[in-house]
Amino acid sequence: MTATAPPPPLKDDLDIVIPTIRNLDFLEMWRPFFQPYHLIIVQDGDPSKTIKVPDGFDYELYNRNDINKILGPKASCISFKDSACRCFGYMVSKKKYIYTIDDDCFVAKDPSGKDINALEQHIKNLLSPSTPHFFNTLYDPFREGTDFVRGYPFSLREGVPTAVSHGLWLNIPDYDAPTQLVKPLERNTRYVDVVLTIPKGTLFPMCGMNLGFDRDLIGPAMYFGLMGDGQPIGRYDDMWAGWCTKVICDHLGLGVKTGLPYIWHSKASNPFVNLKKEYKGIFWQEEIIPFFQSATLSKDSTTVQKCYLELAKQVREKLGEVDPYFVKLADAMETWIEAWDELNPAKAK
Amino acid sequence: MTATAPPPPLKDDLDIVIPTIRNLDFLEMWRPFFQPYHLIIVQDGDPSKTIKVPDGFDYELYNRNDINKILGPKASCISFKDSACRCFGYMVSKKKYIYTIDDDCFVAKDPSGKDINALEQHIKNLLSPSTPHFFNTLYDPFREGTDFVRGYPFSLREGVPTAVSHGLWLNIPDYDAPTQLVKPLERNTRYVDVVLTIPKGTLFPMCGMNLGFDRDLIGPAMYFGLMGDGQPIGRYDDMWAGWCTKVICDHLGLGVKTGLPYIWHSKASNPFVNLKKEYKGIFWQEEIIPFFQSATLSKDSTTVQKCYLELAKQVREKLGEVDPYFVKLADAMETWIEAWDELNPAKAK
Repeated sequence: MTATAPPPPLKDDLDIVIPTIRNLDFLEMWRPFFQPYHLIIVQDGDPSKTIKVPDGFDYELYNRNDINKILGPKASCISFKDSACRCFGYMVSKKKYIYTIDDDCFVAKDPSGKDINALEQHIKNLLSPSTPHFFNTLYDPFREGTDFVRGYPFSLREGVPTAVSHGLWLNIPDYDAPTQLVKPLERNTRYVDVVLTIPKGTLFPMCGMNLGFDRDLIGPAMYFGLMGDGQPIGRYDDMWAGWCTKVICDHLGLGVKTGLPYIWHSKASNPFVNLKKEYKGIFWQEEIIPFFQSATLSKDSTTVQKCYLELAKQVREKLGEVDPYFVKLADAMETWIEAWDELNPAKAK
Repeated sequence: MTATAPPPPLKDDLDIVIPTIRNLDFLEMWRPFFQPYHLIIVQDGDPSKTIKVPDGFDYELYNRNDINKILGPKASCISFKDSACRCFGYMVSKKKYIYTIDDDCFVAKDPSGKDINALEQHIKNLLSPSTPHFFNTLYDPFREGTDFVRGYPFSLREGVPTAVSHGLWLNIPDYDAPTQLVKPLERNTRYVDVVLTIPKGTLFPMCGMNLGFDRDLIGPAMYFGLMGDGQPIGRYDDMWAGWCTKVICDHLGLGVKTGLPYIWHSKASNPFVNLKKEYKGIFWQEEIIPFFQSATLSKDSTTVQKCYLELAKQVREKLGEVDPYFVKLADAMETWIEAWDELNPAKAK
């Protein structure tokens, strides 16, 4: 396809959301790329601790006390002692686009040795259409130097709006605890120069480490669930958001891309701690995946909020049988939408 | 996943099928890779012409007279004056695997400058499982140095047998005539180091230029249709085979991979000639794709042959309304299966 126009300046249209429990020294490396943008820092854990942010960054920071104050009783839907708390940042943002990144992720290099501007690639991904209805064998047809191949129906070449841009990780791959334990030394060294649309009807494991999305298109579905403190499960926050988001994108005719950009994931988390957090999820996902694979939404669900509430109802009814946790999660999904709508009143037309 | 064992010697298990109208000088470049294998050359056009094959290759060659003699009246299902005739080679082969390549495809180089052994990569693809039921964001989890990522259900990690390995092309991309006309100078220079499974339920444009498949698993579905001489359409032979194959693979629980290996596609075909061949297809594919997207096969269709005959019936009923050509094509699909079964009697158990 004709190359898309260069991305417009998005300085005023994008917030970077960072969940953290420590000083944000990692931002030094990102300075050339992140400094023009506004940061929303969601401080997890002890609110009395001070998080240092390098000079020169424009940011707002929320700790648990702030979240409780802003959301009141609805703060119960925001996880504590888990990076799932990041979704609070999505809610308080007023921007069209969100980029979220973990604080152990650094700037990666492309095969030519050049620093990768991850944010720029996410913006490119989000500003060009997705093609979920038919697979293009030369990958994203909207990238420069490529196009739709022979046999691709012309009626599908406009594509659909892109809601999610899922970036990847060099060095430490995003493995579950059992795989970490079995392959402690495996590193991802393969730079795959590709962006592709995840086809309609196909689920994927969405990782929150390096993720961009269009908040106007899909924001209310980006709820990272109930994890961490007081919950029976952790490390499924982004997965949960990914499954819900993909089902809703498919229903609403929106696209999800994965591939470039890469970040450099510096440090593997402790596999023993991870196993403790994950082990229920490892069982549960065997039932959760078929649930989402067969989930359908009604024609009346024409907004992300309506879709999400319909999905919450189905979670309560069907996954509630798997474990009472899912009833609590369904309640929290509804609370999340209430809180979202409270902080984001519908714009006057 | 644990790296798969190195491919066993496949010399006696694989035939290379080449459709051609000219001397096969291009084989010189492929000599180090192809010479150990048996070639099946399907000569198209004037059977009185002699096709020269470089010394040292082990081959059998069939021209139109041979095809007519072997198949009798059933030879009507094999196209003439179109590279679709190549599927005759699939039928007369007795091997488990087929690799087919066009005679304007040369050895490509990987980014390090090394010659790519396309056949070796196809064999790797075919010998390792596919993962059509859930998307793995680090691509083919069976390649060395990678695995299933966090959130990938463990019950799906065995994968399914791979039936098709679809390779790509550097230099001249496989574009349709309108795109060729609009972008005469576009070249594919992006080497994407990836193999991935096309998810279940997703169709793709299968190109016959550089294609491997497991004949035992999917052979009877690899019919390249009625194209060329006396037919209203050309250049949809591989597309047709791809749509039928994918629907049947999805039904039977088989996998289709695309990506590596690349070949070097040397010369663009004439876009004006292509437009003449393609233009009905460009209309028709707008109805063919939805037809295949919604096609379902019955539980009784437990073999490729049964699936294919059921599909032929649906083609006659549903696409017959689009154009009488599809009635003729449905007849030819049935003739193809009859001929296949005649040449490939079921092995005694």
